[in-house]
Amino acid sequence: MNTIGENLKLTVYGESHGVSVGAVLDGLPPGETVDWDEVRREMARRAPGKNSMSTPRAEGDDFAVQSGYCNGHTTGTPLAVMIANSDVRSGDYDDLRHLMRPGHADYTGKIRYGGYNDYRGGGHFSGRLTAPIVFAGAVAKQILARRGIRVGAHILQIEKVADRPFNPLGEEPAVFERLTRETLPVLDKPQAGRMAEVITAAKEDSDSVGGCIEAMITGLPAGYGDPLFDSVESGLARMLFAVPAVKGLSFGDGFALAAMRGSVSNDAMYYDADGTVRTKSNHNGGINGGITNGMPVLFRTVIKAAASIGKEQDTVDTDDKKNAKLIIKGRHDPCIVQRAVPVIENAAAWTILDILLTQGGRYT
Amino acid sequence: MNTIGENLKLTVYGESHGVSVGAVLDGLPPGETVDWDEVRREMARRAPGKNSMSTPRAEGDDFAVQSGYCNGHTTGTPLAVMIANSDVRSGDYDDLRHLMRPGHADYTGKIRYGGYNDYRGGGHFSGRLTAPIVFAGAVAKQILARRGIRVGAHILQIEKVADRPFNPLGEEPAVFERLTRETLPVLDKPQAGRMAEVITAAKEDSDSVGGCIEAMITGLPAGYGDPLFDSVESGLARMLFAVPAVKGLSFGDGFALAAMRGSVSNDAMYYDADGTVRTKSNHNGGINGGITNGMPVLFRTVIKAAASIGKEQDTVDTDDKKNAKLIIKGRHDPCIVQRAVPVIENAAAWTILDILLTQGGRYT
Amino acid sequence: MNTIGENLKLTVYGESHGVSVGAVLDGLPPGETVDWDEVRREMARRAPGKNSMSTPRAEGDDFAVQSGYCNGHTTGTPLAVMIANSDVRSGDYDDLRHLMRPGHADYTGKIRYGGYNDYRGGGHFSGRLTAPIVFAGAVAKQILARRGIRVGAHILQIEKVADRPFNPLGEEPAVFERLTRETLPVLDKPQAGRMAEVITAAKEDSDSVGGCIEAMITGLPAGYGDPLFDSVESGLARMLFAVPAVKGLSFGDGFALAAMRGSVSNDAMYYDADGTVRTKSNHNGGINGGITNGMPVLFRTVIKAAASIGKEQDTVDTDDKKNAKLIIKGRHDPCIVQRAVPVIENAAAWTILDILLTQGGRYT
Amino acid sequence: MNTIGENLKLTVYGESHGVSVGAVLDGLPPGETVDWDEVRREMARRAPGKNSMSTPRAEGDDFAVQSGYCNGHTTGTPLAVMIANSDVRSGDYDDLRHLMRPGHADYTGKIRYGGYNDYRGGGHFSGRLTAPIVFAGAVAKQILARRGIRVGAHILQIEKVADRPFNPLGEEPAVFERLTRETLPVLDKPQAGRMAEVITAAKEDSDSVGGCIEAMITGLPAGYGDPLFDSVESGLARMLFAVPAVKGLSFGDGFALAAMRGSVSNDAMYYDADGTVRTKSNHNGGINGGITNGMPVLFRTVIKAAASIGKEQDTVDTDDKKNAKLIIKGRHDPCIVQRAVPVIENAAAWTILDILLTQGGRYT
Repeated sequence: MNTIGENLKLTVYGESHGVSVGAVLDGLPPGETVDWDEVRREMARRAPGKNSMSTPRAEGDDFAVQSGYCNGHTTGTPLAVMIANSDVRSGDYDDLRHLMRPGHADYTGKIRYGGYNDYRGGGHFSGRLTAPIVFAGAVAKQILARRGIRVGAHILQIEKVADRPFNPLGEEPAVFERLTRETLPVLDKPQAGRMAEVITAAKEDSDSVGGCIEAMITGLPAGYGDPLFDSVESGLARMLFAVPAVKGLSFGDGFALAAMRGSVSNDAMYYDADGTVRTKSNHNGGINGGITNGMPVLFRTVIKAAASIGKEQDTVDTDDKKNAKLIIKGRHDPCIVQRAVPVIENAAAWTILDILLTQGGRYT
Repeated sequence: MNTIGENLKLTVYGESHGVSVGAVLDGLPPGETVDWDEVRREMARRAPGKNSMSTPRAEGDDFAVQSGYCNGHTTGTPLAVMIANSDVRSGDYDDLRHLMRPGHADYTGKIRYGGYNDYRGGGHFSGRLTAPIVFAGAVAKQILARRGIRVGAHILQIEKVADRPFNPLGEEPAVFERLTRETLPVLDKPQAGRMAEVITAAKEDSDSVGGCIEAMITGLPAGYGDPLFDSVESGLARMLFAVPAVKGLSFGDGFALAAMRGSVSNDAMYYDADGTVRTKSNHNGGINGGITNGMPVLFRTVIKAAASIGKEQDTVDTDDKKNAKLIIKGRHDPCIVQRAVPVIENAAAWTILDILLTQGGRYT
Repeated sequence: MNTIGENLKLTVYGESHGVSVGAVLDGLPPGETVDWDEVRREMARRAPGKNSMSTPRAEGDDFAVQSGYCNGHTTGTPLAVMIANSDVRSGDYDDLRHLMRPGHADYTGKIRYGGYNDYRGGGHFSGRLTAPIVFAGAVAKQILARRGIRVGAHILQIEKVADRPFNPLGEEPAVFERLTRETLPVLDKPQAGRMAEVITAAKEDSDSVGGCIEAMITGLPAGYGDPLFDSVESGLARMLFAVPAVKGLSFGDGFALAAMRGSVSNDAMYYDADGTVRTKSNHNGGINGGITNGMPVLFRTVIKAAASIGKEQDTVDTDDKKNAKLIIKGRHDPCIVQRAVPVIENAAAWTILDILLTQGGRYT
Repeated sequence: MNTIGENLKLTVYGESHGVSVGAVLDGLPPGETVDWDEVRREMARRAPGKNSMSTPRAEGDDFAVQSGYCNGHTTGTPLAVMIANSDVRSGDYDDLRHLMRPGHADYTGKIRYGGYNDYRGGGHFSGRLTAPIVFAGAVAKQILARRGIRVGAHILQIEKVADRPFNPLGEEPAVFERLTRETLPVLDKPQAGRMAEVITAAKEDSDSVGGCIEAMITGLPAGYGDPLFDSVESGLARMLFAVPAVKGLSFGDGFALAAMRGSVSNDAMYYDADGTVRTKSNHNGGINGGITNGMPVLFRTVIKAAASIGKEQDTVDTDDKKNAKLIIKGRHDPCIVQRAVPVIENAAAWTILDILLTQGGRYT
């Protein structure tokens, strides 16, 4: 359903072309100050219409906090937010009521909800639902940062263009900070230009491209997470697979571990100068047995190419019960990977704060 | 924590060297017959000690049903199972109380539980905890099969040896059935021999190897799953990342989607001869917008090499607070991938049954 | 926290003097028509300011649906609602930041949230938070009614004036319907006048009065509910004790059962003319072993007198850390029992719909 | 279902005449010592067969801990317990497969589980399922006591014989302790004799009697609990209504509040000599707005008379679909109130510990 979390719960609602999308954030610690401009900046990273590489839909993603924030602090009771849908052109989507877009949720949503789902602009399946997730994560990120925990992410790959990976032993906050300011956030700057070319080429071809995002959480102490079903991996996975277009998630060296021997993938341990246990490598992505080991948590998600493309496609017409051809009009994103970066980053921040609040203070 | 599921809940307990491991299965439909020999056969697939490729610990994995089954049927109330720990040699593990095994949960568990966790044989972090998961899934698998839904899995890769992948458009039940009878379940039989060589080589080298498992669920109708946090991907992910050693999960073409254009990754749709909507390819792994589309659900997990190896490793001694060398004695698995196959398969079966029970019969 | 429910989840947010209060209703069946005027009518039953017996705060309780309703039907995805706070006079409450109102949550909320809770008008503890609960229940009630399930409630007692109880074997829908139209809904009409006198007397005395509400659910088939923690009693109890001022809940003959023998409290069973199993009495309130038996579900809640009274009271000043005298200014309800009737009724409707959706259609 | 709790989860299983009943306790703090003799003593308070006032079924209620306890401490991972069913005489229950006992769950269970539920001895609906709840609570009670929190209970009423109520401002631990040692735990000792007479009279009449239990929790600091759905009242209510035969629950002055004015039911507040905020009366049972106020938490539950009586009763035969007469053979409890006292007491202890663990240590 649309609520996630244990001691910190996030409930989201909305459709692409409804009145608003929004969220209820429940369980935030009381007494936290939120820098709303910073939240706005995070929202802007995700917002469409900023340049030729994303859909021209121009949502300001202005948000209106309804509750839970009083006299400059969180109250500890639910913080609700409303993000109005402004630039809605539903006319573009009329055909899509019965012509199912391949790769999209049009058909599965129709079956799931007996044909009653709001199909306009993808309805509840729209990427627009990631706006309240970014909002929630942006609040969480500030609370985490105040405790020395930071989340960063960059584009690791778009089509065949790759960025260099994060140093698995850690990156500085300044690096994360810089990445939040880039249109195509990469570590190896020239790759941004090559990625832009690839995106432009796809756009000119009425097509779209996929990619891969790498993220890192630093400053997280050892000992958070549970074995089994509430492992840090399970918690992040449930959240990240909720993000539309995410089709894969791996931790540490991920799928490369299939070809590694234990003598390589085991991260040798040692006492740091200050008495902290650390590992010499980070093949396990900072997690052992589902629990943080104090090293950076490192993970990658794959983002499939946006399903809405301008090319003609084979599909079905559910009114006529016949095969049909489809050319999607309207506004498309040739690449959603760069817009997905803040979503992944903030979604992860929210999950980590939930884990801290759930496990971080058992009564003693 | 140790309970997962919505309308179908699984709670597991136990430690490697405790009295027993076990589970409570809650929410099973009443009136289901269980073929206990078949469950035993699934348990045997996971059990250690069968050949030179796994640990010589000889657990029969005999189980004793405590409740929830009466007069040859499930009752609808909790089915509890106890699997006694018999062949326990705790002496082998004495050093491990303070010498942390790299890649294992020794250190993280110690921090998480303030040093009070049962460290013998990995305690609650042991792979032995997958026995009750296999039990639960084996019961679920029979209930699913009765409704035409089948789950199969094979080893896709061990170290650098690869099997051919499943046909993404579907495999026959007979193929799945045959795979359950193989020591190293593969589609391309000669690869099993090559995999065995790789495992033996690692063993002789006091080392271990990782691998990759591919699984498929067929017969699942379109329309199951939710957008966002209860997507089929999120549900399977939470469960599969609970399985020790799983460090990555992807659906459909997974990480290869990063390099694909939308015109390729979009699965073209058509009406089948019998009026069913199908897709011509299955890059999306049978799921769009978190909801099944009627095509086989297809996913891959990466299993890292077992952390317990016989080679000397650098680690920490938490008693002396000093760096130390570790050579792990006792029984090891040079490869856990083949034993993980039934775990992945049955864990997935359990999750799918939960999704069906949660969403499959909303009151109308 | 602020989310309740299994397959049907309700999340509420808001403070008395914030921007809005509201709710997210998740898991509603798709394709349901909602009569919004009827919802408005239910909201109006609860709304303040209608007559001299309730607080003069004049909230229209106008609501704005944000999502989840499209083309005259529920979509199946979250239905979010916003109820703006309009007639807010925070000035009345300035003293209450540090002068704790006895019987109210001022002090407990302050401790719980470290002093950061919104204290204006009771903040998140305000009875205003029942507005979104009534909204949710009013939607649920329509869905239930369409399936022959009806919920009704009346004032059983105010101070020492009692109404006659429901016929435990059932009441007609017309009775329930009539009750929704009364200012002081009672079965024995003359008692309404006596109750009004009692309320007026308390008002003139700058005091408030408590009371008791009896509710009934008819048309609910046998077989819903679970033994133990998800008994119908447990489900209703968790919801009803969330309603401010509710301090007791009983089913069937309730506390009178303490003095009854089994030969009396056991409801004798028989087959009705149409082959339905019924009971000759209903001491058990339609529930055995946590599960409905097909007879009306019957329960009572006690509502304590509103804590805000005009009389001088002994209390503490948390600024000065000293004992203090308090006279509460501002608007008070001399009696909240009549306004609580639609809250209890609709809260129960929501819970019953959740039970039906969770248990009513297990996959078969 | 059969799992309850947030950060502290209890899962129970079993049937009256199955192999065993038991529980999984998940989320216990690590490093807690458990006095197993004390747990055994709590179990014995509930166990049947001790004297002529309860069923002669002689279950020792011996338990076998399976996991979660190692080297004299809780491990922090699940503590599983198995309580074997020994003195099972299923023959007594053969008729009950189709002759529904009035007041019992025979019929509702049959409908709920499609006739597949274990009907022997009430199956999963048996009072025997309270044994694992007492076990869990007995563990929790020790953990609470170590932090100065104590739970006590006494019989307030059996049929028409009443005990004096607790002093609402608090009772000493020694009083609670003494009550645990009595067969019929009362404050006013002579009433125990009168209650015994009433029970014996019912027994001689092949009948049973109901009663009322009052419980108190002392030492609980102010500030625990949530507004709305996770109020302390809601949490205790969900748990206590899971206990078979409980049909009502009230806090503080409970249903008497209906006749009280606010000027009476508001508990005047003051600073104690040591600077603690206290109230002069405790009409609210230690809870305001769902949150503890530091005064004792005080509540009452009504226990209906045991449904199994020896008198002839009118009922239905579900095989023949005809009305029938029933005389229940086998072993009965003429009064279950005294056995319910430790169940209520320990069930409450479990819930309170969950609230403390969930809210008591939010990450700061």
